[in-house]
Amino acid sequence: MQIAMVLYDRFTALDIVGPYEALSRLPDVRVDFVAESAGPVRADTGFLALTADKALADVPHPDVVVVPGGPGTFAEVENEALLEWLRTADATSTWTTSVCSGSLLLGAAGLLEGRRATSHWLTLDFLPQYGAEPTGERVVPDGKYITAAGVSSGIDMGLTLVGKIAGDEHAQAVQLLTEYDPQPPYDAGSPQKAPAHLVEEFRTNSRFSLT
Amino acid sequence: MQIAMVLYDRFTALDIVGPYEALSRLPDVRVDFVAESAGPVRADTGFLALTADKALADVPHPDVVVVPGGPGTFAEVENEALLEWLRTADATSTWTTSVCSGSLLLGAAGLLEGRRATSHWLTLDFLPQYGAEPTGERVVPDGKYITAAGVSSGIDMGLTLVGKIAGDEHAQAVQLLTEYDPQPPYDAGSPQKAPAHLVEEFRTNSRFSLT
Repeated sequence: MQIAMVLYDRFTALDIVGPYEALSRLPDVRVDFVAESAGPVRADTGFLALTADKALADVPHPDVVVVPGGPGTFAEVENEALLEWLRTADATSTWTTSVCSGSLLLGAAGLLEGRRATSHWLTLDFLPQYGAEPTGERVVPDGKYITAAGVSSGIDMGLTLVGKIAGDEHAQAVQLLTEYDPQPPYDAGSPQKAPAHLVEEFRTNSRFSLT
Repeated sequence: MQIAMVLYDRFTALDIVGPYEALSRLPDVRVDFVAESAGPVRADTGFLALTADKALADVPHPDVVVVPGGPGTFAEVENEALLEWLRTADATSTWTTSVCSGSLLLGAAGLLEGRRATSHWLTLDFLPQYGAEPTGERVVPDGKYITAAGVSSGIDMGLTLVGKIAGDEHAQAVQLLTEYDPQPPYDAGSPQKAPAHLVEEFRTNSRFSLT
């Protein structure tokens, strides 16, 4: 099984490393980090680069596609080379997935038409313009598409997908190995749970800017 | 504030990207990924490389040190160059931290003598040989040292440290932005919770091999 992990300028690192950490522990798997050109790709903060070992063109038919989000999404929704690769890869993929605002890239490629989907809570409202029906759930499967909410939700998505591909027991083994027994020191991880003024602050002065 | 994120051959990617994603969102922060030599450093699965933008020698006095774990730990506990850097960095750091088996590197550098600490559940028993007292907790602060349990626990450690450095409200904002409202599809994230036969299987045939 070949998994393509897509990188692009100003992606959010945990969006892709979360599902990678689960999916890379599938049996008989090969994971390829891909970008428009092979080489280092810098994440949104500027402090970290992940290596794309291959160019998109080198991996035309992965079994699984994982698309992260990040501030860079808003440039990539107009990147026809990436969108065309997504369409081609999706034509033969077993699973096409996204984390965070990555769902807007699946949407822009025309893959979420008529489907239930999710996104980062700050970008959920962009989904309808691609014909998708936004949901407030954290991991949203619809047929072979699985979209996940913001950033850290990719870990839940990755484990869910490991279960679908290799069975519950293998997924539990991966959860145990990655000691995924979360104990957040606060309970502010969603707009429903966080202090209202913080939610408002992000909505009016979003770090997920459109620039 | 300067944060050094340490990389070495066969580290576990989520160990370092988890705390990075939280800590990189501190105000006025500079994060430097460092390794013995600058350049790409490959993670344990072989499928992913992160870039060390600087060599250890270029970042002698970071305010915060974060050391990940991974199968590569067992080679690095004998890497005197890394251990000496850890001792020097620790001499002036505000916080010295680890995730997963990274605590064994702090231990090997002599930094955990007489301290409460944790590690991946499979490597917890190595702590006493460094004079540390192992605990079963997920995030263990002891003075300026914070050790975290396996892999994904670095997210909880990172958020905890953001709270200590920038206050609860900033940490909650980071939790909200990274939508850290975990909903694991299984409840097998610790040896206490996972099916006993999986725990046994890892203990007898550990992927965290000593080779």
